[in-house]
Amino acid sequence: MGPVADPDVAAILRRPMALVVQKYGGTSVGSLDRIRMVAERVAETYRDGHQVIVVVSAMAGETDRLLSMGWELSEQPAEREMDVLVSSGEQVSAALLAIQLNVLGVPARSLLGHQARIRTENVFRKARIRTIDGEGLRSSVDSGNVLVVAGFQGTDTYGNITTLGRGGSDTSAVAIAAAVKADVCEICTDVDGVYTTDPSVCPNARKISRISYEEMLELSSLGAKVLQIRSVELAMKHRMPLHVRSSFSNAEGTIVTDEEHLLEKVIVAGVAADKKTAKLTVRALPDHPGVVASVFEPLAEANISVDMIIQNVSREGHTDLTFTVSHEDADRAEAIAKDLVASVSAEGVGRDDSVAKVSIVGVGMRNHAGIAARMFRLLADNSINIQAISTSEIKTSCLIKAEHADKAVVILHDGFELEKNAN
Amino acid sequence: MGPVADPDVAAILRRPMALVVQKYGGTSVGSLDRIRMVAERVAETYRDGHQVIVVVSAMAGETDRLLSMGWELSEQPAEREMDVLVSSGEQVSAALLAIQLNVLGVPARSLLGHQARIRTENVFRKARIRTIDGEGLRSSVDSGNVLVVAGFQGTDTYGNITTLGRGGSDTSAVAIAAAVKADVCEICTDVDGVYTTDPSVCPNARKISRISYEEMLELSSLGAKVLQIRSVELAMKHRMPLHVRSSFSNAEGTIVTDEEHLLEKVIVAGVAADKKTAKLTVRALPDHPGVVASVFEPLAEANISVDMIIQNVSREGHTDLTFTVSHEDADRAEAIAKDLVASVSAEGVGRDDSVAKVSIVGVGMRNHAGIAARMFRLLADNSINIQAISTSEIKTSCLIKAEHADKAVVILHDGFELEKNAN
Repeated sequence: MGPVADPDVAAILRRPMALVVQKYGGTSVGSLDRIRMVAERVAETYRDGHQVIVVVSAMAGETDRLLSMGWELSEQPAEREMDVLVSSGEQVSAALLAIQLNVLGVPARSLLGHQARIRTENVFRKARIRTIDGEGLRSSVDSGNVLVVAGFQGTDTYGNITTLGRGGSDTSAVAIAAAVKADVCEICTDVDGVYTTDPSVCPNARKISRISYEEMLELSSLGAKVLQIRSVELAMKHRMPLHVRSSFSNAEGTIVTDEEHLLEKVIVAGVAADKKTAKLTVRALPDHPGVVASVFEPLAEANISVDMIIQNVSREGHTDLTFTVSHEDADRAEAIAKDLVASVSAEGVGRDDSVAKVSIVGVGMRNHAGIAARMFRLLADNSINIQAISTSEIKTSCLIKAEHADKAVVILHDGFELEKNAN
Repeated sequence: MGPVADPDVAAILRRPMALVVQKYGGTSVGSLDRIRMVAERVAETYRDGHQVIVVVSAMAGETDRLLSMGWELSEQPAEREMDVLVSSGEQVSAALLAIQLNVLGVPARSLLGHQARIRTENVFRKARIRTIDGEGLRSSVDSGNVLVVAGFQGTDTYGNITTLGRGGSDTSAVAIAAAVKADVCEICTDVDGVYTTDPSVCPNARKISRISYEEMLELSSLGAKVLQIRSVELAMKHRMPLHVRSSFSNAEGTIVTDEEHLLEKVIVAGVAADKKTAKLTVRALPDHPGVVASVFEPLAEANISVDMIIQNVSREGHTDLTFTVSHEDADRAEAIAKDLVASVSAEGVGRDDSVAKVSIVGVGMRNHAGIAARMFRLLADNSINIQAISTSEIKTSCLIKAEHADKAVVILHDGFELEKNAN
């Protein structure tokens, strides 16, 4: 392991006795051999003098195996019982890891959601955490225990078992880290950090050493699967530093932290492409007050998430309204739009599934004018036509033909020189 | 289904609204298809107007699969964690059965050990139940729910998960039945009742329609696997009628009840043979006070259960001491006995693994003289030599050569005419 580049991270790792929350995902505990490796890693942290709380996911494949049994019994299985069923997966991995830690001489104890007093909303399948008994966990850690907490689960106010939704173990880990006031929350996974873009698309992709919560949120929203969005929101809220790193190497990964802790505010931190996008256009919509709401209200009721929205300038009292949805929602969204065309006397609905959204993300965009223009120029110079644009404070997205998506990622990555170690 | 032979059972089944606890073992919930069948059975009881609490074991094979993972990590895995690991098995089957009951329109809710407030001793792997929140369960049932309780598990006073030992789901069911003051506890299993002896050994074996707790205890101790001993003790203590029956038929099985509820006190209720017995003899033990204790104390410390003990009349200040242990304890018991031979100056240790214990059990033996003599005569007439004898109030056991065990069972079953429907 080379010298630690970042002074703050180095400081945390050099502390004589830090309180560290380590989260291990499903592939990291996917077999008994993997569990042995994870236990070695936890034991090492413990022997280095740190206090450790581990949060585990279910063994890879186990959650799907359990869910499929429930779905085989019913197309709409009782949600309360599905949570009881699926939460057994984390129970098994937590127990196994605790067993192996004890083999290594580490005084480890598993804790299920109800034992860690992880209280959630009274909702099944995707509950949000309300409170955690941070003091209880802390006092158990202070008395010398390494805790292995089953991720993804909690209990509601009635004592029912609830789960936090897919990827919920990230959220468990960050919420626990916040509750015990940990020094750092390590997200140990099967990749070694967050990359400037997908390395399988762009060979120049570079591991980011440090990124802001805001940027990470945008990248997670754009489909970077390395962290669940909700866990990033929670970390941002509690200003809990995250360290995304490999479960199986000691190399430093990516630190997700406050903007002011970034050594240098890069203009563009990452590039992302979302190819699972469909474009729908309602043509010649009568342009009067409330008509746009009449399009989006039924979509919202159907729980369809609309991404980009483009309304063209009105012409002769009519306007074309274009919006994008995910591929999986496209059929339902099209049907809703078609129903609407009749009721508001629009001309018709167009649909294109062969589009992609490419985005650049970076907090430096706030203070640097002309970044969006540079993006448009890079695409134009390479004959990639932009169909729609949307922007946020730290993100610019362009809708293009899906066939150009990979090329656009490489062009933007190279054009903004993301391969250079700027941060 | 024919007319119900026994007036008391008929009374329970005819009650307009009985509170019934039904326990289903691992093979009864061993697949999704089996779970569908069990759900139909529960739904039928519910639709007949009864209140139902179901107690389930883990799906067949699941407990062993979980245990083997723990043992693969360690020869002595942390007991606390093994209980966390293995208790997930009942969690899965309880959730699946609750899902399927909801599919059938039955308002079912699963409850884990901690949710049913099954409090146990602070011991792992084989904890005894201390208290159950009978009122809470009862009020949930009274408000219309069918409860599906995960068997085999509870929590100790610190909130740790504990398990009740092999077959513990029987004990869970009886304890819950006692706590809610159920009318009957049905043990639904893969056999259709308790038999006068093992039907695979004796073709004339007959299903017993009614048996006393005491007789059932003796038969369970002698290896009849249909009911866990502890569950019978608990049922006897609370005078809770048990109904051992098939999970997959509506035929009446065997009622285990108070002696005074037996229609007719048969002299011999059942015959059992235990072939996993080893005989050890310490030869020419000096016959002075305390010497026998010096043999059995180290065996007790090693947690070896000694069954029959025979001390021959002393001769020239020495005596031969013979005792039996199970095959699995024989090596350790022999080693302990050999250590002792040196320290107390005995002559040596003999061992014979080819012995079996055949027993007759029946409450009628209390009041009928000559039953033991008749047993000895039946064996002698068939040239079966008796090596040792032990008796209790309602049981007589003889140690014979293992090769004669099956023949002895048939001889005793026929000799006492157990094939006749006396009870």
